[in-house]
This record gives sequence, C-alpha cells and structure tokens, in this order.
Amino acid sequence: MTTTPETLAASSADLHPFDQAVAFERALSLEGRGLTERVGVTSAAYANMVGPFGGITAAQLLSGVLKAEERRGVPVSITVNFLAPIEDGEFRLVVTRTRENKSSQHWMVELRQGAEQQLRANATVITAVRRDVWKSTEIVMPTAPAPQEVPRVTRNVPLRWVERYDFRFVEGTVPFTGDPADSPSSRSLAWVRDEPPRPVDYASLLALSDSFFPRIFFRRAQRVPIGTVTMTTNFHCREEDLAAVGTGHVLALAQGQVFFGGFFEQTAQMWSEGGQCLATSHQLVYYRE
Amino acid sequence: MTTTPETLAASSADLHPFDQAVAFERALSLEGRGLTERVGVTSAAYANMVGPFGGITAAQLLSGVLKAEERRGVPVSITVNFLAPIEDGEFRLVVTRTRENKSSQHWMVELRQGAEQQLRANATVITAVRRDVWKSTEIVMPTAPAPQEVPRVTRNVPLRWVERYDFRFVEGTVPFTGDPADSPSSRSLAWVRDEPPRPVDYASLLALSDSFFPRIFFRRAQRVPIGTVTMTTNFHCREEDLAAVGTGHVLALAQGQVFFGGFFEQTAQMWSEGGQCLATSHQLVYYRE
Repeated sequence: MTTTPETLAASSADLHPFDQAVAFERALSLEGRGLTERVGVTSAAYANMVGPFGGITAAQLLSGVLKAEERRGVPVSITVNFLAPIEDGEFRLVVTRTRENKSSQHWMVELRQGAEQQLRANATVITAVRRDVWKSTEIVMPTAPAPQEVPRVTRNVPLRWVERYDFRFVEGTVPFTGDPADSPSSRSLAWVRDEPPRPVDYASLLALSDSFFPRIFFRRAQRVPIGTVTMTTNFHCREEDLAAVGTGHVLALAQGQVFFGGFFEQTAQMWSEGGQCLATSHQLVYYRE
Repeated sequence: MTTTPETLAASSADLHPFDQAVAFERALSLEGRGLTERVGVTSAAYANMVGPFGGITAAQLLSGVLKAEERRGVPVSITVNFLAPIEDGEFRLVVTRTRENKSSQHWMVELRQGAEQQLRANATVITAVRRDVWKSTEIVMPTAPAPQEVPRVTRNVPLRWVERYDFRFVEGTVPFTGDPADSPSSRSLAWVRDEPPRPVDYASLLALSDSFFPRIFFRRAQRVPIGTVTMTTNFHCREEDLAAVGTGHVLALAQGQVFFGGFFEQTAQMWSEGGQCLATSHQLVYYRE
C-alpha cells in the first residue's frame, strides 16, 4: 500500500478542509460481495481536545458508504458508535453492504486503526430511494432572526474544529463564557454553517449534527470530562433540499434530556432557513462526575 | 445441534411468554474472544401482522448481550436495525463484544435465519457500570392520573402482541377506533405494562419502547403499509430503579416528529410512576404512501 498521510494530503491540498477529511484511497473492493475498504487520514483542521472532532469521524464513516459504487439512494439514518480513542494519522474504513432491499440498503462501516487494525468506531447506515409521498412536520421550527441579523461568535475557542464553523447564537452561547452558575436549561439555538463556506451535503450535515457543545457544559459550573459514545442522525431531506440550502446557515437546536449515572442524552434538530427540518439527531454522552 | 422449536418450548412452557421469547440454547462460545452464538425461536405470543412484533425481536437481540458471561454493567444504549422480514421459527444470535473499556463494553449482535443464515436484524449495544454522579432530568414528566384511574383498553385488536400489554390511554388511543379524519397531532400518552404482569427489566423496557402504534396511523385516515427500519433506546436507570417499578405501569409518551419521503421519525419517553424517566427512544419507520 502506497497511501500515506502525505500523498493523500498532497492530492487534495486545494480542497476545502472538509473535502480533504473525506478524501480516501481505495484499498480493496469486492463489489459483487458489497465490500470496500478505503484508507483515510485524520484531519488536523478538525482536531478536538484529544483526537479528532466526533462529527468529522461520523462524516468519514458515512462518506465510506456514499462513495461505494453499489450505493443507491440517499442516507436516511446513521448510528455512529465511538468505541475507542482515534489517534491522529491513517485509518482504514471497512464498508459492508449488509442488506439489499428493493428501494433501500443497509450498511455497516468500521473504522480500524493501528498495527492490529483495532476497531475504534463503527456505524450502521440505511440508504434509500426517496419517494414523493404524503409528508408532514409535526415539530415546529424555533423562531429566530435571520442569520445576517445575529452576530457571529468571534471568541477564540482553543479547538481547531470550532474554527471550522460559523456559529451565530440566538439562545445560549459557547459554554464557559457567561455566568459561571449552573443553568437550569441546556437549550441552545444557533445558526451554523461550515467555515469557510461550503455547500451542505449529507456528510457535512451529519458533522453539523455533532457540532453542539456538550449540554453538560451548560448545566455545570465546571468543565467535566465527557465523550460521545453513540449518536444517531435521521435525515429528512433529498439532495435537492440540500442544494437549496447551499452555503447558507442551518438553524440548529439542541437540548439535554436526561443526565443520569454517567451518561446523558442530548437531542438536536437542524432546520433550513426555508423552514424544512433537514435532520434530527440524538446522542448519548459519557460524563465522569 | 439438537435444539428445535419444540425442545425450547418444552423447557420453558411454564414461563411468562416474554421469558419464553428470550430463552435461548447456547450453540457456540468463544469467551476469550468475546463471541457467543445462541439459538432462539420466534414467539407466537408476540406475533405481529406478519412475523414477530419488532419490540420482541429487539428484546431478543438485547438478551443475547445480557446473557453473555463476560458482560459487565447494564445496558445504556441499543440501536436495532431491521434489515429483512423475520420468519416464524428458529433463529441464531451471533453476539460479539467489539470493545472492552474500563467501565463500559461495546457489542454487536446479529440475528440470522434460514438455510443461508441470512442477516435479518442487527444491533449495536453499549453496557456500562453506572456511577453515583450528578444527575438531572430536563424533560418534564407529562401529567396523568394514576394508572388505576384510567380504564384499560379492552377493544379487541387482531394482533397477538397487543394482547401482551395492558394499555391505559390518557391521550390518544388505539388507532382506527375514533374519528376517521386526519389528526393534526400524533401524540399519545398511556400507562403500559406487560400482560400478564411481569417485573420490568431492561429487555422488557426495550420491548415497551416499541409498543407504540405507528404515529402515521394517527395522522392518516387510512391504514398504510409501514415497517420500523431502525430504533434507538437509551436507558436512564439502574437495576434497582427497575426493581422499584416492579410489575407497575410505565407512563409512555410518543409523538411523530417528521414524516418525509417514505420515512418518519417518532420519539418516545418512558416514565416510572415515581417520576423517573427510565428510557428515551426514537425510531425511523418506513411508510409507503
């Protein structure tokens, strides 16, 4: 195998950091059996405190499916499990089509790394052909001024991945910047888009669905050790709906539900400026104290 | 292999139907490698229109993990994917421990069936040792009269699994029994418990989290073909919290969020009578028209 972080980076140097992050080399393809392996490299541009931002890892797992030649339809649901810390550097994606139905497909993706190709993250994904049938949105879009009327967060957060987003908070803010007292609510509402601007697609919308600061940071007066253990995002949009958003902002609502015994759940909604709920998401996050 | 539906049924004939459904024979165990295979049989007592009730399949997948000797801690999250129709009769569970951390474990469970042992359903599960740390419930328990004050649904629904639950609706009802016009909301609130009564545990709470009638049945004046494709349930309880519920009712809230392009998402909460949110759940359901 000749792929190295350097060759991959060199071949994609003029790409948006997000596109660089999801650029892979193909290592193995058994198309008839629905199996593909690809090699990627973690993205320094999306670095978190330790290792990569979970949203970019999720986007890499989903991209493994999106790039599969036998993939039909668009993603409707993905569950990502974070099993072990991901180290900076090369990783391998093992993409398996586990089921082919008439208008949908099921997938399993594994992210493996290290000398023993240890499993660090995995995802189950469902893709499907969308149909023009009865539709309805029961949840209501939160009211918010237009993104142009909301000031962008300019505070310097010492995390590389935070620089990759343009955040404009309507409710809540970046944690640890306001009153240090515990807050009774962890609700936040913000316009968000990629920085630099990039037309939204399924993978970047998935990354966006993990761009919420951990809700416990809003509730506690202290920074506590946390880590997402599992995240599910359900998409409610076709490719043309995402094309209509383009490089515009997405209205992102997040709130904690239950914090219990070392794990808390937070839910999220992502809305287009035109009023479409593009995706809903929920994740379970480990917290230590 | 000598296990047959008959031998399994005979060895568990005096058990509660739920316990019969999660009674397996061990087929293979490679404990050092964290791999177990078990053989089970679909439960006629939990039959759905076609094949088994999804909640009992989910409970069977989770039980495969719960019965693993190397399992530590309690379930905190499970995502179940329904890939293909499950046929009445024998199935095989392949349970793999994919990661062992200090206080948590990750698992993959596959349900295979048929001559080619085709994958019909799978699940990713996280188990963990619960710790006595800071806790908070941000969502609010819906107000409801005590279960004893709410009449039990006595209407005869021609589905075996529905007979396995005692439903007492506070809001909403069994679909197709009221006004045939479309309803603007799919919200329902009901006290539910196993029938006959059985002390609740993680597996039965998981099954309960799928005991909600598909939200689209409340919205449409017609019965439309549907099927759950993926469901995630996050648990927010220790074993002693479930012991405190015992054979009591659980207050179950469900509502549709977005119905779009052939898939809709419904969310759910399950509360103890004492006011603890025991679990939250969300599922994506296929609908045809």
